[in-house]
Amino acid sequence: MKLNIALLAGDGIGPEVIDQAVKVCDAIATKYDHEITWKPALTGAAAIDAVGEPYPDETHYVCANADAVLFGAIGHPRFDNDPSAKVRPEQGLLKMRQKLGLFANVRPTFTFPSLIDKSPLKRERIEGTDLIILRELTGGIYFGERGRKDNGDTAFDTMTYQRFEIERLAKKGFEMAMKRSKKLCCVDKANVLESSRLWRETVQGMEKDYPEVVVSYEFIDAVAMRLIQWPKDYDVIITANLFGDILTDEASVISGSMGLMPSSSVGSKVSLYEPIHGSYPQAAGKDIANPLATVLSAAMLFEDMDLTDEVEAIRNVVNKSLAEGFVTEDLADGGKSYKTSEVGDWLAENI
Amino acid sequence: MKLNIALLAGDGIGPEVIDQAVKVCDAIATKYDHEITWKPALTGAAAIDAVGEPYPDETHYVCANADAVLFGAIGHPRFDNDPSAKVRPEQGLLKMRQKLGLFANVRPTFTFPSLIDKSPLKRERIEGTDLIILRELTGGIYFGERGRKDNGDTAFDTMTYQRFEIERLAKKGFEMAMKRSKKLCCVDKANVLESSRLWRETVQGMEKDYPEVVVSYEFIDAVAMRLIQWPKDYDVIITANLFGDILTDEASVISGSMGLMPSSSVGSKVSLYEPIHGSYPQAAGKDIANPLATVLSAAMLFEDMDLTDEVEAIRNVVNKSLAEGFVTEDLADGGKSYKTSEVGDWLAENI
Ligand SMILES: CC(C)[C@H](C(=O)O)[C@@H](O)C(=O)O
Ligand SMILES: CC(C)[C@H](C(=O)O)[C@@H](O)C(=O)O
Repeated sequence: MKLNIALLAGDGIGPEVIDQAVKVCDAIATKYDHEITWKPALTGAAAIDAVGEPYPDETHYVCANADAVLFGAIGHPRFDNDPSAKVRPEQGLLKMRQKLGLFANVRPTFTFPSLIDKSPLKRERIEGTDLIILRELTGGIYFGERGRKDNGDTAFDTMTYQRFEIERLAKKGFEMAMKRSKKLCCVDKANVLESSRLWRETVQGMEKDYPEVVVSYEFIDAVAMRLIQWPKDYDVIITANLFGDILTDEASVISGSMGLMPSSSVGSKVSLYEPIHGSYPQAAGKDIANPLATVLSAAMLFEDMDLTDEVEAIRNVVNKSLAEGFVTEDLADGGKSYKTSEVGDWLAENI
Repeated sequence: MKLNIALLAGDGIGPEVIDQAVKVCDAIATKYDHEITWKPALTGAAAIDAVGEPYPDETHYVCANADAVLFGAIGHPRFDNDPSAKVRPEQGLLKMRQKLGLFANVRPTFTFPSLIDKSPLKRERIEGTDLIILRELTGGIYFGERGRKDNGDTAFDTMTYQRFEIERLAKKGFEMAMKRSKKLCCVDKANVLESSRLWRETVQGMEKDYPEVVVSYEFIDAVAMRLIQWPKDYDVIITANLFGDILTDEASVISGSMGLMPSSSVGSKVSLYEPIHGSYPQAAGKDIANPLATVLSAAMLFEDMDLTDEVEAIRNVVNKSLAEGFVTEDLADGGKSYKTSEVGDWLAENI
């Protein structure tokens, strides 16, 4: 198979973890006889520094014409601590999601047998967790009108949802649930928010098309609690952009490490694959970041191309590195650890 | 001391848990020679059924003229599953918060020695946790403009903050931090939301007035993760209404049970005290709900009146009931458990 993959390393540890995923994908290509052409492009703070904006047209062109996008991370503290900054790395990420039509962010949460005891949660609560959070990604308060009034003393953001935005996401949720345990949970704040009531109303209206799926409706505050208490109660969760942002980070605790959690963003022709962790600026350039989330994101890429042997090969080698302790310091529990690049080399060799 | 306390039992398990708090307060009054006059008033679904609205003027009058308000819970599934309902119990709670000027919700999170092993989190992560989440309670997306457009197919909610709203909350946060470990964390989503940037900017501007307080700024998604990973890293957290709603419920997991977590809402003349749990309709009328959160909320009431012996007496009797296993079924781990009313009686007798 010939694959053109846009490669957006981004900021902070992005370039380092992306490098390792490339090594692994190249090893897969060699073994299974594919031809991957990498198309690097600028994004985030790196793009702001180079060309003045975080998602330049050239980058969009590269992404829109690729078979898939592999993405590192975005964000830089220089911008976070300057509330008046006009251009911000995150705008690049949001613009990219919107321009590529990536309306659904798929974030699986599962446990790794060899890591269960690293989770702050007790083994019996989390062992066997297997849930997917489907986060709406191109709407809601991320994209509504925002601004200042009263000489800057009043600030506002708007959470807006249109019925079709909820429908297309919920459709994916129902379909996913049909392939799994047929349980769908719609998470909202319908006791307060009008947009949440539209969510609830829309999903309720779709229930009849999926009579086998058991749908539940829960409030975001309750789920923020129940998700870590009883993660095994959940199968597929659908939720709005902001709520999904919060819940998916929270859910990463279940796996024991955010450094392991992959994601895909889908919706139109080209899909994007990225670790759920951020740019982790404190670690940038130190060759210590955990590359596994990015490597597992690449596995999701192959999965969406129905290359099941390739997917299995990647997941196996990741499990092997975990089992044999060939891991970065965040997973080493004070024991022997390896550099980001060493882990990448080891994974590629063991494919 | 003479105390007039407005008593808003509300919905679901509200009346049952409130009854127990009243027993305990009455026992305190007898022992320490106070005179408490209870002023019951309607709120929530109960008030809708009786008079057509969830926070009637009569109720406001009772609250506004009391020395404090003791509140049970609000909410009924009949309304949750009807997105088109015009009047909802929650509107009563929001109206009450706003009309009483309760702009700050104080939610302490701590562990109970005898309950630590009930938490889904591991002992070493949570033992010694002692943090306070200060949630903005009368602004943000709870109170901004909301509505429908396009024949109901588009819904919107507005998250608005004014500088003075942030300032007065942050001031409380700084003052609280000064009395504690001098650590303040401002939680927002400033990498996306304009209102969060106003939060950050406002709090940054106040730092110079509290040179001893170490202030950090974190994103809500990161905190949703870190709060359960490393709760002991936090001391005082200040955050917007919606973020606080989510984080406080999540934080209750640390204590092992939501049925134990009290809160106060303060801001103007009269303060309100309520358990952080909801109306738990499945348990309503069964005499099984845990009354301890409400009882501990009453302790916060006495604390704000500087009645320290009374506070200690309540906390001691609660700890005693936990240590001796005189608890409701949620805390009994399948062992012997007691009815809500039995626990209330026992607490009152042991004061
Ligand atoms: C960087 C930030 C804008 C982004 C988001 O909030 O969507 C990130 O947290 C994520 O979850 O991908
Ligand atoms: C009942 C609901 C409106 C309320 C809120 O969201 O504020 C509750 O969850 C709370 O935290 O007190």
